[in-house]
Amino acid sequence: MKIEPKNKQRLLRVALGEEEADLVLPDCQLVTVVTGEIYPADVYVAEGFIAHVETERPGELSPARERYDGKGRYLIPGLIDSHMHIESSMMTPRNFARVALLHGTTTIVHDPHELANVYGVEGVQYMHDSAEGLPMRQLVDIPSCVPAVPGCENAGASFSAKEIRELARLERVVGLAEVMDFYGVIHGDPRMMEIIRAAEDCGLYLQGHAPALRGRQLSAYLCGGPFTCHETTVSGEALAKMRVGMYVDARESSISKNVEAVWEGVKNNRFFDTLTLCSDDRESDDLLHEGHLNAVLRKAISCGMDPVLAVKSATINTAREIGVAHIGAVAPGYSADMVLTKDLRSLWADAVFFEGRLAAENGVLKAEIPERHFALEERNSMRLPELTEENFVLRAPEGKEQVEVRVMEYISKDSSRTRCLTETLPVKDGVVCLGEDMAYVSVVNRYGLGTRSVGIVKNFGLSEGAVASTVSHDSHNLTIVYFHPQDALAAARELEKKGGGMTAVKDGRILNTLRLEVGGLMTRLKAEELTREATQMKETERALGITVPTNPLLRIVSLALPVIPEVKMSDLGLVSVADQKLLPIFTEK
Amino acid sequence: MKIEPKNKQRLLRVALGEEEADLVLPDCQLVTVVTGEIYPADVYVAEGFIAHVETERPGELSPARERYDGKGRYLIPGLIDSHMHIESSMMTPRNFARVALLHGTTTIVHDPHELANVYGVEGVQYMHDSAEGLPMRQLVDIPSCVPAVPGCENAGASFSAKEIRELARLERVVGLAEVMDFYGVIHGDPRMMEIIRAAEDCGLYLQGHAPALRGRQLSAYLCGGPFTCHETTVSGEALAKMRVGMYVDARESSISKNVEAVWEGVKNNRFFDTLTLCSDDRESDDLLHEGHLNAVLRKAISCGMDPVLAVKSATINTAREIGVAHIGAVAPGYSADMVLTKDLRSLWADAVFFEGRLAAENGVLKAEIPERHFALEERNSMRLPELTEENFVLRAPEGKEQVEVRVMEYISKDSSRTRCLTETLPVKDGVVCLGEDMAYVSVVNRYGLGTRSVGIVKNFGLSEGAVASTVSHDSHNLTIVYFHPQDALAAARELEKKGGGMTAVKDGRILNTLRLEVGGLMTRLKAEELTREATQMKETERALGITVPTNPLLRIVSLALPVIPEVKMSDLGLVSVADQKLLPIFTEK
Repeated sequence: MKIEPKNKQRLLRVALGEEEADLVLPDCQLVTVVTGEIYPADVYVAEGFIAHVETERPGELSPARERYDGKGRYLIPGLIDSHMHIESSMMTPRNFARVALLHGTTTIVHDPHELANVYGVEGVQYMHDSAEGLPMRQLVDIPSCVPAVPGCENAGASFSAKEIRELARLERVVGLAEVMDFYGVIHGDPRMMEIIRAAEDCGLYLQGHAPALRGRQLSAYLCGGPFTCHETTVSGEALAKMRVGMYVDARESSISKNVEAVWEGVKNNRFFDTLTLCSDDRESDDLLHEGHLNAVLRKAISCGMDPVLAVKSATINTAREIGVAHIGAVAPGYSADMVLTKDLRSLWADAVFFEGRLAAENGVLKAEIPERHFALEERNSMRLPELTEENFVLRAPEGKEQVEVRVMEYISKDSSRTRCLTETLPVKDGVVCLGEDMAYVSVVNRYGLGTRSVGIVKNFGLSEGAVASTVSHDSHNLTIVYFHPQDALAAARELEKKGGGMTAVKDGRILNTLRLEVGGLMTRLKAEELTREATQMKETERALGITVPTNPLLRIVSLALPVIPEVKMSDLGLVSVADQKLLPIFTEK
Repeated sequence: MKIEPKNKQRLLRVALGEEEADLVLPDCQLVTVVTGEIYPADVYVAEGFIAHVETERPGELSPARERYDGKGRYLIPGLIDSHMHIESSMMTPRNFARVALLHGTTTIVHDPHELANVYGVEGVQYMHDSAEGLPMRQLVDIPSCVPAVPGCENAGASFSAKEIRELARLERVVGLAEVMDFYGVIHGDPRMMEIIRAAEDCGLYLQGHAPALRGRQLSAYLCGGPFTCHETTVSGEALAKMRVGMYVDARESSISKNVEAVWEGVKNNRFFDTLTLCSDDRESDDLLHEGHLNAVLRKAISCGMDPVLAVKSATINTAREIGVAHIGAVAPGYSADMVLTKDLRSLWADAVFFEGRLAAENGVLKAEIPERHFALEERNSMRLPELTEENFVLRAPEGKEQVEVRVMEYISKDSSRTRCLTETLPVKDGVVCLGEDMAYVSVVNRYGLGTRSVGIVKNFGLSEGAVASTVSHDSHNLTIVYFHPQDALAAARELEKKGGGMTAVKDGRILNTLRLEVGGLMTRLKAEELTREATQMKETERALGITVPTNPLLRIVSLALPVIPEVKMSDLGLVSVADQKLLPIFTEK
């Protein structure tokens, strides 16, 4: 993406001091991410760009239409998030901007992978177009793995090289998003190779996704093309990845806290050009109260990373990683994206400038973000099959009094990993009965294909009623955990009516619903209202027994994610993750 | 420029260890420019790329067709020169490769500015095409300022945005070369803006050239687009440029030794991502005996730069500066350009690999560089007007017995800077007589335009005879310094016959000629022969009084360079550099 002034001639005249600047920020302590220094400076802005940084005679001001006093505070470049999903905030891109800007994030590199699985190209286009005219730069990486595991699940779309080439034409598209199919990359799978080739031809950078990859497999992954990773959770892994030239995007999301481990792994390095910071998935509650990327920096600094290096990692390093020039530094010719802060350790943003205009100040949005209507936001994405209670009954093969059933068992209350158990369960009136700690689970295709599955989950955490969600990575089919088919049916009907979201049911009655009407993933509510509703929903789910230490709403969302070992459910049935195959629910005994 | 394997599938299989590698380098001490570490490693190569770097179990070798033992030596990435002119070596691109490879340079970013001034687009095309199939990557920046000062000199060509767009299509073109017209950039001159726009549209990086630029002018230059500079000679300037985000290409050429000053200026910085090293202009003698870029690193290290940082500056930093991926590191997926060296301080190359093949070993070329014929090399570029002795006589205005003459005076024996003096000189038989330390100078257009000038130079150094050169930056017109018109004429005829070069004349007789038949700038001789001939030529010139401390051949080559203050001669007359205007030789008194 080209970042350039509309009127370069005027920018030059202002730089030379021949013409009045649009804005001057006198009396700043400039954090210079290129040299690592901090020194006094006055910063001049014109046409949305830094025209001049005065350091020889700070205080002797040249004319400017506006003046915003630095008052001796630190001036850092606007923060750049190297990898994140707006959908994880459950907010629309415009409402996400309203809250992220308060924290000094002026550029995000986001992967609209979730909505792509629901609405395909149109979903990516909507996420891209929503950023038009925003006082924040929302750069887009094109989802590379839609669906995540072809053949084992049905999403709302399927991306090949054709879709990549089509979407690469959009103005703010810069990369190919997290190439999760590492197996396809390292083994040169033709579909994956074509997707990578298409991205390279279009000049996109290749964002990686390589959890726990090491040694020769990591080498092959790099030879395949992707050269970044935000999935590093172990110190040794961080160092190993950096040594082979990979960009390590240290992540601190609402779910995965990896910054400490990454920093521990690389802190003794001499160079950190390839270290960046990212938020990946942050819910509205965290965004409001902890912050966005500034919270990630704060964490890094608390782990011992020097604040200047933290700022560098979240600005110029990221700009270089994604191959976008003119962002990431407060220097002449750079977009005037800047943050004033009193404290380089906490990094609360006193004032945030985007393209030279005040966007937020002391936690209050100052830029105007007008409401815009998008047809996609009005549409109900739910295309369920006709359903009856019978659809949610797990019937045993004819004539059996007991059956051997493959059960998906969560390894703990707070992990999304599972084991595949084979359990002997009694049959009553032809129906498989549940054993201890078990519940039924059903995944219903919501894209009009009519596919659905019923199985059994153990150690999920639910103790009564039912919970259901249309946020269900990565295909986002309707996923329901329940004891009684009537509750499952009620949940399905409720979410069908509401256009998606999360619901909790007991005795056939809806207890609470968090409506996510935009693609079944996002709401048009703003952060404050959403947080209020989500908090209520969390309480409802806890009351039904989902007492996970973190966010109970997230317990169900990875139940159908067939890239997390050992088994997961999809709309096609039970999926064995390692060999990407479907397993029959009943074993052949 | 895309750098990618022909057979990616095979590279992946080798990376995974499923197939035999082409080459293994066991027992290396790998210098990792990304993290700044040095550790033992075995390096596997396939398809010209690094397939795998084994660090977990070094020594336990996997199969490979060839083996080259590291013997515990340091393995560094092949060196990348961020800015240079092949023409300065006076060798053809292919012969330049023969010597640069011996020293571990595997990639150069060169600016065929000189030949562009002679042959225009065709000259650039020749320089580009000459690199085809070489065991070295000769990347091209398109000359931005042909001629250097339009209106004050005539070169063999004139480049506008059209030529830039045309040349940008060539495979190995990566940038727009040193944008010397800083005045045009900062004042938004339409021609310069169009050239920059063309380069940006074509995805080229913008190489700068900003000697002594500072403060608001430097800011404007950066806002104008170019973001690198190899013309930094003062410590404070180096720091100032780096602070505003400029890449500083520290130069150590045969003429300009700036590495020490640059390092002194920036050595206290914390980050050095934007520091690179370059050779700019190196003559064959230096190339043979001192080295190429390794000599620049050696100098930097002797000034206190840590060797690992020096290697980083001359590899990955440069790759990022020029926006070329997959070169500059020894890591999976990178081109297998590597150097083995026993000593990280002297950096003499024991073995040099280009794309995984041994190119040079212990100062001997190992790769085959076949002879190739280029029509341009056979052509005589000299298109002088018909000349007689009279053309070299400086005649006074009619009827004068003495005249006030503007004289170009060199400020010292070893500087190319001049002052403009006005001297009163006697006239004899209508001819202006020379004063003390003076000689006549004539610049004759050699591109068929018929323009020529005669003037007076002081403190040049010549004490008898004449010297002449078709190497005469940047227009490379025939430049002659002499006392007697007959010597000037003899010199012109000699160089016309030989197709260009440098010659020395006394009493109408040719003393010695260094033939440079390729565009009047380069010879087809190899480094050893050229050095021998150039050494003889230097002795001849010294005998004529040119006793400069450095290379006497270079005394004349900047006489007609109208970008070095205060005045210079061109084929159109005396040029005032500051205001880019022609000055009459005789003042109006």
